[in-house]
Amino acid sequence: MTAPRTAPATAATVHGPVGAHASPYARWRPVPHDAVRLAADGLLGRWQRRNTEATIPHCVAQLEGHGTLDNLRRLVGDTDAPYRGPHFADSDLYKVLEAIGWDAGRPGGEHPRGFVDDAAYLLVRAQDADGYLNSWFQGVKTGERFRDLRWGHELYCLGHLVQAAVALHRTTGRDDFLTVAGRFLRLVEAVVESGETAGICGHPEIETALVELYRLTGDRRHLDLAARMLEARGHGRLGHDHFSSKYFQDHQPVREATEVAGHAVRQLYLLAGVADVYLETGQAELLRSMERLWASVVDGKGHVTGGLGSRHRDESFGDRHELPAERAYAETCAAIASVMWNWRLLLATGHGRYADELERALYNAVAVGVGADGTSFTYSNPLQLRTGHDGSEEDSPSGRLPWFGCACCPPNLARLLASVHDYVATTSPGEIQLHLYAAGRYVLDDVELRVSTGYPWDGAVTIDAGRPLTGRALRLRIPGWCRSYRLSADGVPVRSAVVDGYATVPAGARTVTLELELPVTTLRAHPHVDALRGCVAYARGPLVYCVEQADLPAGVVLEDVYVDPATPPAADDAGDPLFPVVLAGRARHRPAPPGPLYRPVDGGDDGDAGREIEFRAVPYFAWGNRGTGAMRVWMPTDDDRRTR
Amino acid sequence: MTAPRTAPATAATVHGPVGAHASPYARWRPVPHDAVRLAADGLLGRWQRRNTEATIPHCVAQLEGHGTLDNLRRLVGDTDAPYRGPHFADSDLYKVLEAIGWDAGRPGGEHPRGFVDDAAYLLVRAQDADGYLNSWFQGVKTGERFRDLRWGHELYCLGHLVQAAVALHRTTGRDDFLTVAGRFLRLVEAVVESGETAGICGHPEIETALVELYRLTGDRRHLDLAARMLEARGHGRLGHDHFSSKYFQDHQPVREATEVAGHAVRQLYLLAGVADVYLETGQAELLRSMERLWASVVDGKGHVTGGLGSRHRDESFGDRHELPAERAYAETCAAIASVMWNWRLLLATGHGRYADELERALYNAVAVGVGADGTSFTYSNPLQLRTGHDGSEEDSPSGRLPWFGCACCPPNLARLLASVHDYVATTSPGEIQLHLYAAGRYVLDDVELRVSTGYPWDGAVTIDAGRPLTGRALRLRIPGWCRSYRLSADGVPVRSAVVDGYATVPAGARTVTLELELPVTTLRAHPHVDALRGCVAYARGPLVYCVEQADLPAGVVLEDVYVDPATPPAADDAGDPLFPVVLAGRARHRPAPPGPLYRPVDGGDDGDAGREIEFRAVPYFAWGNRGTGAMRVWMPTDDDRRTR
Repeated sequence: MTAPRTAPATAATVHGPVGAHASPYARWRPVPHDAVRLAADGLLGRWQRRNTEATIPHCVAQLEGHGTLDNLRRLVGDTDAPYRGPHFADSDLYKVLEAIGWDAGRPGGEHPRGFVDDAAYLLVRAQDADGYLNSWFQGVKTGERFRDLRWGHELYCLGHLVQAAVALHRTTGRDDFLTVAGRFLRLVEAVVESGETAGICGHPEIETALVELYRLTGDRRHLDLAARMLEARGHGRLGHDHFSSKYFQDHQPVREATEVAGHAVRQLYLLAGVADVYLETGQAELLRSMERLWASVVDGKGHVTGGLGSRHRDESFGDRHELPAERAYAETCAAIASVMWNWRLLLATGHGRYADELERALYNAVAVGVGADGTSFTYSNPLQLRTGHDGSEEDSPSGRLPWFGCACCPPNLARLLASVHDYVATTSPGEIQLHLYAAGRYVLDDVELRVSTGYPWDGAVTIDAGRPLTGRALRLRIPGWCRSYRLSADGVPVRSAVVDGYATVPAGARTVTLELELPVTTLRAHPHVDALRGCVAYARGPLVYCVEQADLPAGVVLEDVYVDPATPPAADDAGDPLFPVVLAGRARHRPAPPGPLYRPVDGGDDGDAGREIEFRAVPYFAWGNRGTGAMRVWMPTDDDRRTR
Repeated sequence: MTAPRTAPATAATVHGPVGAHASPYARWRPVPHDAVRLAADGLLGRWQRRNTEATIPHCVAQLEGHGTLDNLRRLVGDTDAPYRGPHFADSDLYKVLEAIGWDAGRPGGEHPRGFVDDAAYLLVRAQDADGYLNSWFQGVKTGERFRDLRWGHELYCLGHLVQAAVALHRTTGRDDFLTVAGRFLRLVEAVVESGETAGICGHPEIETALVELYRLTGDRRHLDLAARMLEARGHGRLGHDHFSSKYFQDHQPVREATEVAGHAVRQLYLLAGVADVYLETGQAELLRSMERLWASVVDGKGHVTGGLGSRHRDESFGDRHELPAERAYAETCAAIASVMWNWRLLLATGHGRYADELERALYNAVAVGVGADGTSFTYSNPLQLRTGHDGSEEDSPSGRLPWFGCACCPPNLARLLASVHDYVATTSPGEIQLHLYAAGRYVLDDVELRVSTGYPWDGAVTIDAGRPLTGRALRLRIPGWCRSYRLSADGVPVRSAVVDGYATVPAGARTVTLELELPVTTLRAHPHVDALRGCVAYARGPLVYCVEQADLPAGVVLEDVYVDPATPPAADDAGDPLFPVVLAGRARHRPAPPGPLYRPVDGGDDGDAGREIEFRAVPYFAWGNRGTGAMRVWMPTDDDRRTR
């Protein structure tokens, strides 16, 4: 390993959200933010364009409509409107600004400069003389600054301000947000160093932001503060109330933790920060801890969609194997945080398992969070909504909503999708790595790759470099779900062992073709996952599918449909741009007998054997775009024995 | 039906918690509170004695230790301690006083007069000149009286004060609590009549209390106010915030409701009030509504233990068939409220189905709420706790706790168990009805019955009247779970059709014997209950059983044990006073293979076929009395096909 540098190398290009291009402990480096232009007809490209055209403008309008900007304007006398929204509403503005930043700098993005200018002018004026900036504590709970780091979210909001400032600086060159953030940060440094507070935020986020600021500025103090905050955590310093220290990940030092716990978004943001500190400092103990925690997710606490967090009450992971489909919380932000963490682990280790989990989350638990219109969103993401579901409680509506009382998820989606092209490839000396197979044009230093593919609907990928890739091997991810593939370079089959999830094409190839087999896979859950007993789920490639009431014959209620795991549905062309490939098959419709909730095993009939019907499954991310109705990922089987 | 009376008949005996002895629409009448002396060695008798000796003194000590009394003392300058506990903590004191009231008046109960005198003195002094009495709004949120009926719990607390006052008046004759309650009530009447507020409480409770006060005093205004509050509900007048109107049962008028919804305890307390108003007014629409709502519980929203409420977040029922074992909330108070409601429905209709549900709740979901020591309690009552369960969150500890931040459940258990003997029998002209088969001596007017039975461990019941029961038929409940029984009077078999759940012994019998068959029953859930797919539960008589880790062979983890529904365990003498009868049988130990959470159906082995082991199931109410550890009511089966 190389020794840690003291300052980052000067950047010659625009860097994206994880500017680890010079991080000493990054095995692979992110490509520049302006390197990849996604094809307009690819799935990621379509999502990114929708984000530009619909989601970001919608978010800007919602910030105005929900008083988020007025919360700041009232501080400077521009309005006498009352404060609105949760006490951490400033972060919504910062995340939208960050999204605009990434979008402004991506090939094909847009730059609503007027909104950004207005926001900058507002923040500069609203900031107190000593650097403090938080519209809740300046405008409502005056005199209570830094009094309650457990719940105050002051450092959380600052973290998002830092990330917005970094993004806008990288893509538009402006420094004003950095100046505002820097002034507040110096105040925070003094508060943390005073020792009068816990010195850590109840909601991690600032840690990863501080490392990014270090990457931008080279100012080691930011990295040190992030590291200090990580180490200060886990000693119960935040105290607790109706939630335990575990909720805040303050129950156990991160170096000693063995399983993810507590509030899922808090846990995952914290781990993104841990990964960032590792990428800069190379402390092996941090990596070992993250590997343990990652395994605890993958082996015991992750939903098949990549959604994380089972419980509504405290938005927490819950016990190992506690993975209900029906009440899966799986907050959209947790899935986004999972992408963040897995990406950093991929950079650190070069192991495809992290790309597998990133992809699982991205195409399912993240993507489901925004509707086909780009202006409706989910917050929690259950894997089942039953017929007659009562959508009256805000945490479990029957469909997507335009905004939320706590609106963390929509702007989070916006900032991720504005930078989603940054996650498709990495480089290392003499090598290019491709992870997500998104159609588009990739300009990597002196190399230009044209990637043609219908992925994830189609497993064929062509990578055309235009000329031989002299001195550059191509490392191509073979996803963990893929059981068979063909790889050739310039028409000649490539024999490559798959190492850590990647096959390698030696340097010199000009046109590379990869064909990933995309069979429909019938999945079952570990027998300790009680909630999924006797059920199977269908996946094809990275996409998890679900059955919607809308696709069942008239008179058939979703809960009465049983599938045969031995005869899975087949991929079918749906002719629908929302989901070009659906799964179609036959199932059994066996109406449940009326009668009591509980009855003796030998007490009467189960109704008749039912009849065969046709059913269709659509990608989970696309559900709920055709009105509301029942949905389920996990289908009960006619032959439970095989799927126990 | 008889016409409503305008004032209750003069009581010649001590009445219990539901003084419906003269209610015009009660088909059956409660027996006096001093009529039944439970045998010391019967299960109910033991629970009641433990309540007297351990639980009530413990509650008194906890009130002191948690500042509940100090909250009132600080109002009159007796202490300068700060307010402690939730803003409705006064209700804990009132429920303990009510428990003391019922215990003081029961055969064999105790009367800690000093505590009651001190409490009365404190309340008289703490009450404001205008009658207002609530230590939170008098001592902390001054100036905010009646401003927030949605969350304030002022009427809820008053309701519990009324119930305490009624109990203490009935059993000890004292009027001081009634005077205090009456003064506050007059103030509340004025507030409700002013129309300035919603006129209803966010947490129903006062409705049933008002009807009871009417039964005691004959003052029709109390009944009218209760009825008015019921009718005012369901029009969104309480408003809503992070919980919808449904949470408060304010979304739909009670006459129109078709299924139970929202916060379970609120819903069930409200329904107890509806039943009370029905018992006094006979409005058929109220009964029809209750029958619909009752069916919605029994057919779709009740756990097999009688526990009610599936969700932790808002303590609500959740969707129909959303009945997870693992995260069943099933608050102890909801089970108690279910006993309250079902008892009133039984009085109103004389139908055994309500006694069945009362018994199911009492012996399982209520009884589990207190430990064998009488001084440890549950709040939520899941039907499964898995190996490695994290008990750090207060809503899902690993075992019983001595008290709670919100301590509603322990005093609620105390007041129910102090009056549990009131639920065993009723009377009507020319007839005595027995419901719960508790061993003891029942003095009913000129009749004395000696009931001998080991129920629920043993199904044999002998009822000895000492002399022929001239002019009194005996109606004996044949529980819904009972598939075979023998009934004889003075040695001669009685041939009686079972009507509405009861067999009848004609007048004139002296000694009646009833033998209820108590086979072990293997239960499965309705196929729409996804959480229980592929599992069975065991019951014997009214008792639901569960398997505890403590009863498995060394090295066997509970989650790896599968049962065969075709060969149920058999009842066995455990020789343990905590659970004289356990179930013993053979099961299969099939350790789960290590490996991923999700894998293809055809992707590898399930491990070997396992081996047979012995297992034991104990009554659900008794679990967790031998240290903490995994527990489950619903056991996965080796042959899922049969139990789908």
